[in-house]
Amino acid sequence: MYRLYDYPPSGNGYKVRLLLSQLAIPFDYVAIDILKGETRTPEFLAKNPNGRIPLLEREPGHYLAESNAILFYLAQGTPFWPADPLAQTQVLSWMFFEQYSHEPNIATPRFWLCHVPKLNAYQDMALPYKQEQGYQALAVMDQHLAHHQYFGAGQYTIADIALYAYTHVAPEGGFDLSRFPHVGRWLQDVTAQPNHVPITQTRF
Amino acid sequence: MYRLYDYPPSGNGYKVRLLLSQLAIPFDYVAIDILKGETRTPEFLAKNPNGRIPLLEREPGHYLAESNAILFYLAQGTPFWPADPLAQTQVLSWMFFEQYSHEPNIATPRFWLCHVPKLNAYQDMALPYKQEQGYQALAVMDQHLAHHQYFGAGQYTIADIALYAYTHVAPEGGFDLSRFPHVGRWLQDVTAQPNHVPITQTRF
Repeated sequence: MYRLYDYPPSGNGYKVRLLLSQLAIPFDYVAIDILKGETRTPEFLAKNPNGRIPLLEREPGHYLAESNAILFYLAQGTPFWPADPLAQTQVLSWMFFEQYSHEPNIATPRFWLCHVPKLNAYQDMALPYKQEQGYQALAVMDQHLAHHQYFGAGQYTIADIALYAYTHVAPEGGFDLSRFPHVGRWLQDVTAQPNHVPITQTRF
Repeated sequence: MYRLYDYPPSGNGYKVRLLLSQLAIPFDYVAIDILKGETRTPEFLAKNPNGRIPLLEREPGHYLAESNAILFYLAQGTPFWPADPLAQTQVLSWMFFEQYSHEPNIATPRFWLCHVPKLNAYQDMALPYKQEQGYQALAVMDQHLAHHQYFGAGQYTIADIALYAYTHVAPEGGFDLSRFPHVGRWLQDVTAQPNHVPITQTRF
């Protein structure tokens, strides 16, 4: 059985939990407290030298890192990953957008504002810059969603899962989602998918 | 014929140029000056709403964004993309590592130090933080390369192209690569691949 190492509030971990739920794949769950440095212990670094969750133990002693790569792995042969290479490319394009333009600017403010007791000087200075970049990413999403129901391939895919994870909790990072009506419509469509689970649910 | 919109010093653009060279695929090259705001014009934003290069026009009026997604597209059916789904996942895992843990911390200091005339207060404060994170990414790479010739699948793949692009010019961002002997060995192995071209070469 798969074993997922995860920090329960993590949107990156939630991506994997959500897809596992929607594929009806059971898994063991190991909660890791990143605030206590539990991803930086020698024991965890032996599992993932990059010291990050989520980490999927696909077989005992064999691990997969990077949330979006884990989604790719789990989605093979399912409707969450389209069959056409061009459609696959569009899905991956949005998933790289998510990790480069979206997550560092939307997830990081949420983490700083909700999980870090007191911001250091760098965080204080970086926060408005990240929020400005985050709003740009949300605007790019809204523009796409004005003309498309989902992000890739005309169907609900792992691109939607990747982008949903931190978008739907963006208000926790100080973002006003009411500015983006198409994003709001899409969030509802994602939530209505079969076997959707909330970010707060770590076991099912 | 493909048309590549690119900023010539860009490592992200270089990834695409390098793979096109190694696949012997001809292409038109359109140089875009990001310092002059040429990715933020209405004309360019109509091509890529995220306002970034590289952008591949695969057919007139049809565009692919995100360097690593473009690599995935071009590599289909070639030895640069392995056939096994688990090996594919490892390749993508390193490519997401590149966009999340590596590029923002290694490429951005290079851009700031080599291309921005004067750093603003945010950049001044962020630079040492990014360099520290960049060194951590290089250490993760070095640890992997101590036991593997390449990043994915036991062969040279688009994961190596993605990571090579900004690693080999990391000294321009203030990084001392002599601390990472396995990275140094790997850089030589990548350079020795057939049809390798340098980052300064935009047409061939």
